[in-house]
Amino acid sequence: MTAPLTTPLTTPLSPTDRTTVRRGRIRAVEERRALFDLLGEALVCHLGVVVGEGAEAHPVVLPTVCAADAEGPDEGGTLYLHGSVAARSLVAAPDRTICVTVTLLDGIVAARSAFHHSMNYRSAVVIGRPRVVTDEAERARALDLIVDQVVPGRAATLRPHTRKELAATVVLALPLLEASVKIRAGGPGDDAADIEAGTWGGHIPLRLVADAAVPAPECGDGPVPDDIRTLVDRLDGPD
Amino acid sequence: MTAPLTTPLTTPLSPTDRTTVRRGRIRAVEERRALFDLLGEALVCHLGVVVGEGAEAHPVVLPTVCAADAEGPDEGGTLYLHGSVAARSLVAAPDRTICVTVTLLDGIVAARSAFHHSMNYRSAVVIGRPRVVTDEAERARALDLIVDQVVPGRAATLRPHTRKELAATVVLALPLLEASVKIRAGGPGDDAADIEAGTWGGHIPLRLVADAAVPAPECGDGPVPDDIRTLVDRLDGPD
Repeated sequence: MTAPLTTPLTTPLSPTDRTTVRRGRIRAVEERRALFDLLGEALVCHLGVVVGEGAEAHPVVLPTVCAADAEGPDEGGTLYLHGSVAARSLVAAPDRTICVTVTLLDGIVAARSAFHHSMNYRSAVVIGRPRVVTDEAERARALDLIVDQVVPGRAATLRPHTRKELAATVVLALPLLEASVKIRAGGPGDDAADIEAGTWGGHIPLRLVADAAVPAPECGDGPVPDDIRTLVDRLDGPD
Repeated sequence: MTAPLTTPLTTPLSPTDRTTVRRGRIRAVEERRALFDLLGEALVCHLGVVVGEGAEAHPVVLPTVCAADAEGPDEGGTLYLHGSVAARSLVAAPDRTICVTVTLLDGIVAARSAFHHSMNYRSAVVIGRPRVVTDEAERARALDLIVDQVVPGRAATLRPHTRKELAATVVLALPLLEASVKIRAGGPGDDAADIEAGTWGGHIPLRLVADAAVPAPECGDGPVPDDIRTLVDRLDGPD
């Protein structure tokens, strides 16, 4: 199940037909580095699993947090996911191929025609069969990576996981081998006739920003930790 | 396939087992009104379909734009999706059950333990079997709704769809009958011992904001249309 640690970051993505970007004016990015950059920025991903059997089988897509580890033990690196042992989507996942998609929304493309309207975005699609992480050290490391994915540096400031917490948590590891990255950026790609007609076209940049941290009531006016302040500052900047 | 127009907005969501919210401290919202409010705010959704057959079958999750119509002809209202006739995920969809998930990210929950870290969000999960929209009037209306979903009011300012554009586009209609809505808000739900230990806990509100519209080069310094200015103003406010 595991593979050498050393899939180079320059290894091409999309080695299989099912993760090949097929169409559109959107740029397919072939470098593994772009995949990790994108995954590193994601506060949420969407996990797609098939639940049920036979005619009852259907996809379920749920938002969750993931964390990529380029040095992880799976071929191409490892994408970690976690959840409650009671979550049927995660419990069903290890026997089946799953899909994890990350989408960072960068803008609205207001074209001169309905047809050419679009969004600017960066997205990654990862397809593979996950393994359940059973090694305790890898489990603890994965859970720390997931906390740090959302608040960088925070895991090191927290008490260790308890046995009870670990027992209640499923950690999955998805190989990052089969993945595709797509990026759309810039203004509309309009038809010449619509441009000549003088209709307005352009794009609206979008970004996610943070407002000031809201301490829990018990924290009063005590100091906000560095990790939280750094995160708020980063998400509040001009870009 | 179609049903009366009049599923009341007070009809409960989650009429089936597969869209019942099963677990967590997250609030399951039962009102149909909440579903439409949430869908109305979404600039992106994630469409999950199963592609392939038998042992090769696997889920694919792709970002796209959807538009809900509470007065649509499907039971519970209609969620419209569109895409290229060349997109295998959309072409595969009508014979199969699909899942559309909308997630609005509202904040980061920084708890006193890794275990209680979370996100604040509002999400909707819709499961059903879509129909391909073939009626030309419904197709045009659906495509207008999709444009207006992203830039309210814009569809009315654009030229009509051409035959070629319509021929290149698949429009799917998904009944909004089977849906669930989940909302998490507020600060962390920490263990008493961790609160007493004095660790900082709180949450960081997040929101999507727009920067000034960037006109296409051919538009020069010409006036930015009202629909675009209104949208930028709305996404640039304090909330």
